[in-house]
Amino acid sequence: MSGYAGRSKKSISPLPAKSWSVASGRGRRRAPARFPNQPRPTAFSMKWLALDIGGANIKAADGEQFAVSQPFPMWEDSRHLVDVLRTLIALVPRATHIAATMTGELADCFSTKAQGVEFILNALNVAADGRHTRVYLTNGRLVSLQAALRQPLLASASNWHALASFAGRYVADGSGLVMDVGSTTCDLIPLVDGQPVTIGKTDTNRMINGELIYTGVQRTPVCAITQLVPWRGRKCPLAHEVFATMWDVYLTLDALPEDPSRKDTADRRPATKEFAHDRLARAICADREVFTDADARAIAEALADAQIKKIASIITQLVARLQQPPHTVVISGQGEFLARAVLERAKIKTSIVSLTRELGPELSSCGPAHALAVLAKEGPK
Amino acid sequence: MSGYAGRSKKSISPLPAKSWSVASGRGRRRAPARFPNQPRPTAFSMKWLALDIGGANIKAADGEQFAVSQPFPMWEDSRHLVDVLRTLIALVPRATHIAATMTGELADCFSTKAQGVEFILNALNVAADGRHTRVYLTNGRLVSLQAALRQPLLASASNWHALASFAGRYVADGSGLVMDVGSTTCDLIPLVDGQPVTIGKTDTNRMINGELIYTGVQRTPVCAITQLVPWRGRKCPLAHEVFATMWDVYLTLDALPEDPSRKDTADRRPATKEFAHDRLARAICADREVFTDADARAIAEALADAQIKKIASIITQLVARLQQPPHTVVISGQGEFLARAVLERAKIKTSIVSLTRELGPELSSCGPAHALAVLAKEGPK
Repeated sequence: MSGYAGRSKKSISPLPAKSWSVASGRGRRRAPARFPNQPRPTAFSMKWLALDIGGANIKAADGEQFAVSQPFPMWEDSRHLVDVLRTLIALVPRATHIAATMTGELADCFSTKAQGVEFILNALNVAADGRHTRVYLTNGRLVSLQAALRQPLLASASNWHALASFAGRYVADGSGLVMDVGSTTCDLIPLVDGQPVTIGKTDTNRMINGELIYTGVQRTPVCAITQLVPWRGRKCPLAHEVFATMWDVYLTLDALPEDPSRKDTADRRPATKEFAHDRLARAICADREVFTDADARAIAEALADAQIKKIASIITQLVARLQQPPHTVVISGQGEFLARAVLERAKIKTSIVSLTRELGPELSSCGPAHALAVLAKEGPK
Repeated sequence: MSGYAGRSKKSISPLPAKSWSVASGRGRRRAPARFPNQPRPTAFSMKWLALDIGGANIKAADGEQFAVSQPFPMWEDSRHLVDVLRTLIALVPRATHIAATMTGELADCFSTKAQGVEFILNALNVAADGRHTRVYLTNGRLVSLQAALRQPLLASASNWHALASFAGRYVADGSGLVMDVGSTTCDLIPLVDGQPVTIGKTDTNRMINGELIYTGVQRTPVCAITQLVPWRGRKCPLAHEVFATMWDVYLTLDALPEDPSRKDTADRRPATKEFAHDRLARAICADREVFTDADARAIAEALADAQIKKIASIITQLVARLQQPPHTVVISGQGEFLARAVLERAKIKTSIVSLTRELGPELSSCGPAHALAVLAKEGPK
């Protein structure tokens, strides 16, 4: 999932209005036919709000047509967490029940994950202001704040499990795979008969087993992706410095939209093609005076190719160890375009279910929050 | 040289007294025998102060026994540059002449290098407060501020050339090499008869030609160094995130000293072994509860080994293209230990001159500033 900590330490004011993206429910909703057991909301039904509390973004969704994503650099702004959560909760005035999942406990402002979980749960408790609140664990259970506090490692890094449990209904039978590509990370979750069958439970073990690839379409420094990039017929090493990220690559390649209001980039300048160009130049210690659009594109293509190749290699190993190759892959997140390119590169022939197409881009980009809200509304099986 | 920009965006107050390290002149000075032409300071001689204005550190030296290094994150604090330069200049009250070299123009707060050079020269002009001021160019000339402003690309990234010109006197005849390893970068400068004979002039071309390796012993993110590290009999991918840097590696391996006053680390916590341990744990998404000292050491050894191997491969190519293999390598910077390991790995059999031994660790770690002060005092040849 997107989340976790990183550099970019300049303080930003919490919750700038312009950075909200609210789902407009534009997705073609085929879900009702697929979710025969999903209760129809009524005047009497409980109204849930799910929060996915990451280290770089906090996402909220109500399991219907509402979803928002708020950039939130936990590692520098954790003292504002209560305010941010309160503001998000207030966006859904009728929400009387809150469900939470998290990855923000890995932010490097916390000495341990348990300390991070405790901090986040305490903030949530204050922000919830007496509302009924449940926390999602990696065993699929929703428990009280107190119960979650007692088992922090089950509450930690739990959002992938909520997404997988939800996405499983698109692959009810046989072997499937969920591939969620976000700003920071890529989750690969094998399914059997709709249930997640991962080997790893912690992030570390999920990384070792190829189920979590800590690389994404925005925050990832380009120097983590490859060593050499093309430069006018030569190969130039990349500076080992966070001068540019994969966001700049995908802005340059028109795979991600420009967003002048977002400045959580490598140099704190806007997320536009123009500044992405400058950042990619800096990655080889050049500047715009000696670096053309063609230079930027050549470097961006090489970097995208290297990232695709890297993920494809891991997914190939993961698929090889499954009892059966997946007949369906559910893709989600703002990096769906990368997921498609990876599946093609890995020559994995499956049908693809796109949550962006199923739910619309806003709900898909808040996939775990949306998934959790749906699961919470349905209640225990 | 050390320098340039990066993340770590939390503001620090400029010039905390505790972070100064002032040379105490402990080095065994064999220099007089080697520098027969160096004028002896007299009451009538001009007193020079040289400034090496980097993007992460600013260094000052008087070419005698004085040298200081001041962490200065140009990319976030550039508005304080005048104050920092003024304070440094005031440390040598008798200095009436100033010489400057720079790399800070690459900081990502500047749109272009020329803009960065102009900004730095303007700050220098104000801080110099009427003192006679000269700027070092990559052609080896010292020129006025006005002349430097007219040729910013010669003033840009010039500090390596000053060091090489100075170090050349330790390799007066035949083929030699300077290897300066700093916090951020590693300079490799071939010499013939004491003069630098680099192919690249700009940073980009120096990187392409293996003369600048943008990797160092402190700031370099570990995820730029390698993909997999050992973890209890398995291989674990590193998170593509700046959770830890090579500083943590060399703290763990006791190659760099602890410094609790320095907090310009990946997580803004002190540069101690204890916190380095936490940061290395985070690099594989673990925490101290599941990560032992032995785990930290295993990962640190693998990362150091990967960095040594990477630099050794580049130096091998560089040496292969020289007309003669270097009979002497002059090593300098706080990463001399890494330079020695690289030369051993690359099986380069030469005599080694250590500037740390020649000048003492403080002057060596401010090598380009010390070199420039010496060159300036000597005046044009």
